[in-house]
Amino acid sequence: MLGLMQDWPLTVDKILDHAKTWHGHREVVTRTVEGPIVRSTYAEIHDRAKRVSNALKGWGVKLGDRVATLAWNTHRHLECWYGIMGIGAVCHTLNPRLHPDQLAWIINHAGDKVIFVDLTFVPMLEGIMSQCKGVERVIVLTDDWNMPQTRLPRADCYERVVREQSGECAWGGFDENTACGLCYTSGTTGNPKGVLYSHRSNFLHMLIGLQADVLATSVRDTILPVVPMFHANAWGVTFGAPAVGAKLVLPGPKLDGASIYELLESEKVTYSAAVPTVWQMLLAHLQAGRLKLSTLKRVTIGGSACPESIIRTFWNDYGVDVVHAWGMTETSPLGTTGTLTPEVAALPFEQQLPTRLKQGRAPVGVELKLCDDAGNRLPHDGKTQGRLMIRGLAIAKAYFRGDGGNILDSEGFFDTGDVATIDPNGIMQITDRAKDVIKSGGEWISSIDVENIAMGHPKVELAAVIGIHHPKWDERPLLIIKTRPGETLTKDEMLDFLKGKIAKWWTPDDVVFVDDIPLGATGKIDKKVLREQFKDYRWPAPEPAET
Amino acid sequence: MLGLMQDWPLTVDKILDHAKTWHGHREVVTRTVEGPIVRSTYAEIHDRAKRVSNALKGWGVKLGDRVATLAWNTHRHLECWYGIMGIGAVCHTLNPRLHPDQLAWIINHAGDKVIFVDLTFVPMLEGIMSQCKGVERVIVLTDDWNMPQTRLPRADCYERVVREQSGECAWGGFDENTACGLCYTSGTTGNPKGVLYSHRSNFLHMLIGLQADVLATSVRDTILPVVPMFHANAWGVTFGAPAVGAKLVLPGPKLDGASIYELLESEKVTYSAAVPTVWQMLLAHLQAGRLKLSTLKRVTIGGSACPESIIRTFWNDYGVDVVHAWGMTETSPLGTTGTLTPEVAALPFEQQLPTRLKQGRAPVGVELKLCDDAGNRLPHDGKTQGRLMIRGLAIAKAYFRGDGGNILDSEGFFDTGDVATIDPNGIMQITDRAKDVIKSGGEWISSIDVENIAMGHPKVELAAVIGIHHPKWDERPLLIIKTRPGETLTKDEMLDFLKGKIAKWWTPDDVVFVDDIPLGATGKIDKKVLREQFKDYRWPAPEPAET
Repeated sequence: MLGLMQDWPLTVDKILDHAKTWHGHREVVTRTVEGPIVRSTYAEIHDRAKRVSNALKGWGVKLGDRVATLAWNTHRHLECWYGIMGIGAVCHTLNPRLHPDQLAWIINHAGDKVIFVDLTFVPMLEGIMSQCKGVERVIVLTDDWNMPQTRLPRADCYERVVREQSGECAWGGFDENTACGLCYTSGTTGNPKGVLYSHRSNFLHMLIGLQADVLATSVRDTILPVVPMFHANAWGVTFGAPAVGAKLVLPGPKLDGASIYELLESEKVTYSAAVPTVWQMLLAHLQAGRLKLSTLKRVTIGGSACPESIIRTFWNDYGVDVVHAWGMTETSPLGTTGTLTPEVAALPFEQQLPTRLKQGRAPVGVELKLCDDAGNRLPHDGKTQGRLMIRGLAIAKAYFRGDGGNILDSEGFFDTGDVATIDPNGIMQITDRAKDVIKSGGEWISSIDVENIAMGHPKVELAAVIGIHHPKWDERPLLIIKTRPGETLTKDEMLDFLKGKIAKWWTPDDVVFVDDIPLGATGKIDKKVLREQFKDYRWPAPEPAET
Repeated sequence: MLGLMQDWPLTVDKILDHAKTWHGHREVVTRTVEGPIVRSTYAEIHDRAKRVSNALKGWGVKLGDRVATLAWNTHRHLECWYGIMGIGAVCHTLNPRLHPDQLAWIINHAGDKVIFVDLTFVPMLEGIMSQCKGVERVIVLTDDWNMPQTRLPRADCYERVVREQSGECAWGGFDENTACGLCYTSGTTGNPKGVLYSHRSNFLHMLIGLQADVLATSVRDTILPVVPMFHANAWGVTFGAPAVGAKLVLPGPKLDGASIYELLESEKVTYSAAVPTVWQMLLAHLQAGRLKLSTLKRVTIGGSACPESIIRTFWNDYGVDVVHAWGMTETSPLGTTGTLTPEVAALPFEQQLPTRLKQGRAPVGVELKLCDDAGNRLPHDGKTQGRLMIRGLAIAKAYFRGDGGNILDSEGFFDTGDVATIDPNGIMQITDRAKDVIKSGGEWISSIDVENIAMGHPKVELAAVIGIHHPKWDERPLLIIKTRPGETLTKDEMLDFLKGKIAKWWTPDDVVFVDDIPLGATGKIDKKVLREQFKDYRWPAPEPAET
């Protein structure tokens, strides 16, 4: 027997409809690519998004067609999102930080018919367009005054397109499982793979994020998502803000400390979300100028592990509550958040820190498990490391066009590629990437743990640990150090520093010093390149001491 | 093209699974019907709910079968809920405050096969059981020691049933639109009608409620739902608390001020939800004993309009934030909540009060409109009264067994039977019940507004306003007053009191004094009975003054 409740498909067009009807006057403020701050409202965003829909329909874009954006966080990008998704086309967010050849590969793989592009990225797109035969039309996200001369095919100016269309257009009316968004993973192994979000998964993910224990965003917040809209849906913020009618502040292309600070203060931002490097830049700017944060209250940090110093400085010096979050493109992305349990919340701040550094707890709708390499479940004892597997209402079940084949285990869980522990209170901590963990004598050594401790040495700028084949132990850790400019450091100094801070058998068997450590597109150490660089490395003779 | 996200049906068994896995040790504390406080955990609730499922399966209960509960808010009732719903049977919550004959009618209409009953209600059930031939089995929610002698059919003791079953049982695996819960409306006109919730609607309603702008419940909360589980899903709290892993405190049968106060303090409750009368009893207890509230921070009030004095006293004397909510059985029930917009939050408390007295804003997933009697949309100007219509992801589309026929308008909205205004900020205020509003010369007079002002007179205990036929104006308001014990009041005194507080043409044309005013099952004034009592009333001669 079925229930007798209304059929109300979970499609994301309803989110902007809601914002227009109930929060139509609420502001959306953008630092534009052209420079000036532009003030809009949800009612205007809604009207202009409908015009984008009409333009797309005029160009023959249909349900399921892919339409790409190559853009910063701006009101125009937001209008494109809802304009594309509202008619059941798929909004494919391109990551401009990728190599142009990779971008071309992705555009072709996705089969993008139309691309909306920011001025910043016009030259890059011009450079690859001859490789992208399927792209029928490129719209430059600017006004007539700033429209460049360009050899992009059938290029048009966004403001002209918007101006000439009607604001009347029917949205929705399709299955809630219809594809809604497409985002490619950065692809550290093999080609990038596309994650195809559905309207339902985005809507549900938005509701998950609005919980008091997740992002906790409210109509009383002013939200500045520094995290890009091309980076896993801006962590859901650009759905969640209109859903609650929160004022939205979009930083455009300027993500440096001074620019972000200016927006935080002038627009009275209360909540923001970004990767750690953004906050490091902001803190440096604050400290250099002895500045204050007048309105910022909460910050979500994700994308990579957050250094303790950021969390402590934000709290002690600025009264800002930093909440760690973990997720990935395949998880929409919210997997866990570090909002505190009552037991931890009752502790003094310094005693909260070890927990605040962990990635946090799974909300309802997200299921986690730890497995060994054979797929057996491992205990949640806070000590046992295992492969982190995830299942839930907004988790990928396959990649676009079937790439990578079946990606779920027999219980329907997706392998995150992370190695983690989960403690008895359900608090998860990432200890490594599965491909980076060092398997020594049947036990796992977390390369990240060793790196984090090595990074604590005042002379170290960057530290990386990789596993190197060892005849007896299978693998042993090699520590690779880039010292700060002008500093020198010896192997013995470094090993002395580690002593007592890590288990003896985790101690690297050698330390090498390099001029630079390769970073990937998202600013993380590129261990694939590093392993390639060290593929001919041999342990010093005599054999490393037994551990 | 469909998205490539995991299939994860929204079924409520996953909520308790989540609580068991991630918050298994969190307490569920009950004041039992037998008297003692009993401490349990989500892990234990989960285990015992599975035993209930196994018992039901043993008795032949199948997908879609109705299983009733006639019970207070207790851990056992919670176990029954999840035990019933987990196997796809329908949990039918019976309201013990109904007349026994009406209860019998409902049991038969629902086709309940099994009833779980609290000790309190065994005599009532014994009295009607001969009328309920379809009930195969009655389980008394108690232990062996307290099991009564009873002539209920195939009666068994709950603790014995639970003890003898296994805690292993597969839950879920059915369509998310499967019926999950059944709750009858109190039925002020005609027979009661059944609202048949689905797993999907309950799960989505739970997510709506967890938003920071709705109930905002968190793992850091200790939640005491005074609102009964038989009253529209306890406003979703008994789904939301395990979903976030909040400690739950269940008050059992004792809802008086002293008993609630004892639990609030001893269990360190931070959040509670109840109808205004409960809070009036609590405040009276607090004031009489000069007591303090040590931990309570937030209270949601719904079910009927909340008197200003409750909101003010809670805030000024106890630092408790009262949030108004509005909904009904057909809306799962959350329709609107009064969490503040930033503009109102910035005002001093006294200036917030007019807004805090309103019913609040609709969250995403709830759509409201105002219509005139012909179904035309009316403006959101804060002044125009109209029929309040509602559509959304957890709103009824029909009643059980098709009673009442089609209940949606051409746009799919349900008529709430309320009359309301909506202001330009989206804040809704109920002004009357559609059947109680007084239609005078083509305009609508809110009986509730006049009553609320009349209730402000210190000598008035209860005030009711009904429309009486008038030869010229169609209807005019009659004010009916019950004075406080020992007080006397005249018509002129009363009308003088109203002068300047309401529009002149809203002024009642007569005031009559009565010994008592009839109340319905939910404690509200029963205007149906009142209209019947005054059906022969005639306006005093000469005709009432023109207005």
